[in-house]
Amino acid sequence: MSKVRVHNFAVSLDGFGTGEGQTLEAPFGHAGTRLMGWAFGTQTFRGMGVGGPGEGSHGVDEAFASNWADGIGVEIMGRNKFGPQRGPWEDEDWKGWWGDEPVFHTPVIVLTHHPRPSVQMEGGTTFHFLDAGPAAALEQARALANGLDIRIGGGATTVRQFLEADLIDRMHVVLVPIVLGRGERLWDGLEGLEERFDIEATPSPSGVVHLTFTRRS
Amino acid sequence: MSKVRVHNFAVSLDGFGTGEGQTLEAPFGHAGTRLMGWAFGTQTFRGMGVGGPGEGSHGVDEAFASNWADGIGVEIMGRNKFGPQRGPWEDEDWKGWWGDEPVFHTPVIVLTHHPRPSVQMEGGTTFHFLDAGPAAALEQARALANGLDIRIGGGATTVRQFLEADLIDRMHVVLVPIVLGRGERLWDGLEGLEERFDIEATPSPSGVVHLTFTRRS
Ligand SMILES: NC(=O)c1ccc[n+]([C@@H]2O[C@H](COP(=O)([O-])OP(=O)(O)OC[C@H]3O[C@@H](n4cnc5c(N)ncnc54)[C@H](OP(=O)(O)O)[C@@H]3O)[C@@H](O)[C@H]2O)c1
Ligand SMILES: NC(=O)c1ccc[n+]([C@@H]2O[C@H](COP(=O)([O-])OP(=O)(O)OC[C@H]3O[C@@H](n4cnc5c(N)ncnc54)[C@H](OP(=O)(O)O)[C@@H]3O)[C@@H](O)[C@H]2O)c1
Repeated sequence: MSKVRVHNFAVSLDGFGTGEGQTLEAPFGHAGTRLMGWAFGTQTFRGMGVGGPGEGSHGVDEAFASNWADGIGVEIMGRNKFGPQRGPWEDEDWKGWWGDEPVFHTPVIVLTHHPRPSVQMEGGTTFHFLDAGPAAALEQARALANGLDIRIGGGATTVRQFLEADLIDRMHVVLVPIVLGRGERLWDGLEGLEERFDIEATPSPSGVVHLTFTRRS
Repeated sequence: MSKVRVHNFAVSLDGFGTGEGQTLEAPFGHAGTRLMGWAFGTQTFRGMGVGGPGEGSHGVDEAFASNWADGIGVEIMGRNKFGPQRGPWEDEDWKGWWGDEPVFHTPVIVLTHHPRPSVQMEGGTTFHFLDAGPAAALEQARALANGLDIRIGGGATTVRQFLEADLIDRMHVVLVPIVLGRGERLWDGLEGLEERFDIEATPSPSGVVHLTFTRRS
């Protein structure tokens, strides 16, 4: 059976997966680039045009970062990862942060209480908008995934929901040693989560700690 | 000048330094032994009679744990680390969790809004009860410390206060990969803390991650 995976999901020491006050210019709100700085140095992110020029590192951050796409047939993301609009869509021209040819190259299900028509992008990415709980969304995702794995792409609200519903098989969380103070918390409502996973920690010279959660069978 | 140090302070992934519902039988409330399990295996804690029989480990957990007493002249702790009573003392016979000869072997300042007479124990530990803010408490501690360092012993409320007042020079936090869900949070009100410290992460085979915070000069 295909797996449900989380990759490269960054959290602060105080458990925030994003800052407060998202805008078009600041997708992570007041967190700025602090949560994703570790990734911007890697070959994988540089290769996606993120983080500046140059080839990027190929150390432990890259080893983890590079696993995000392999074997993935669909991503499920939350509506706030897709963009900064809230409530009913005022601008249906908005097609995500990722330009005409988004980095996903698979179908992407965007969870929202405000569905809109699907949008087909270049390079194999199609955004589908779905108003559904985690289990139902996963069922739809499996139908689109061609037997491949499903990535839960974030943000915090979305990952948390899938963890609460116990639908995640493998999760890679990047603990960033910063205290954000405010934003969206990943761990809320997940008391005892560790009982369901084997957890391994790997530090990086960049200062972050890679935590992998592997679901106990 | 003597340093202000924190050692062996455990926090969960969601940032709790203790659980909810402290009682005589459960000093860490519903967290049970989960936050301190890593320490109970070490030589240092075994040597203090904590964690069971046997000599204990001497790997990385021990390397960190063993630093807690060296060069320390005084500990400052919060009243809830000292015991489970709240409000005015109903039982002044309570002399802490640590028996007739406590492990500190130095003066210990217990912060409380309900001061009571000092208590001299065997082996060099004297508990002094003080109603004072962090800076004033530190001044009193220095007067008792014989030029040695001051340890801020916890709990979360107490460490947090000293961090807020920017009075900590070195801090060793043990990140325990559990989600507690409730209790006392360490990181609240400390947004941007990372700007004041150099932070290093070291994982242990026991599953915890040792984080050291060294104040930038
Ligand atoms: N830390 C990381 O590594 C990481 C990774 C990805 C993204 N991010 C950041 O995280 C932020 C977004 O996270 P977030 O927690 O604010 O939001 P999110 O998870 O991206 O989106 C939440 C929104 O999606 C919709 N939604 C989610 N579940 C739904 C369901 N079951 N049914 C219907 N609608 C549903 C709702 O929007 P509506 O009710 O408005 O439709 C909800 O408010 C962004 O800043 C993004 O940049 C961080
Ligand atoms: N995670 C760890 O490694 C670690 C380490 C040590 C202890 N602990 C655990 O942490 C828990 C205690 O933590 P906690 O956060 O609940 O409390 P705490 O920090 O031990 O004590 C807080 C209490 O101390 C008094 N106090 C603190 N600062 C004061 C000030 N400036 N002036 C006057 N009084 C002051 C107040 O009590 P009153 O107003 O009632 O006097 C306050 O409610 C215990 O369960 C303990 O076992 C954990």
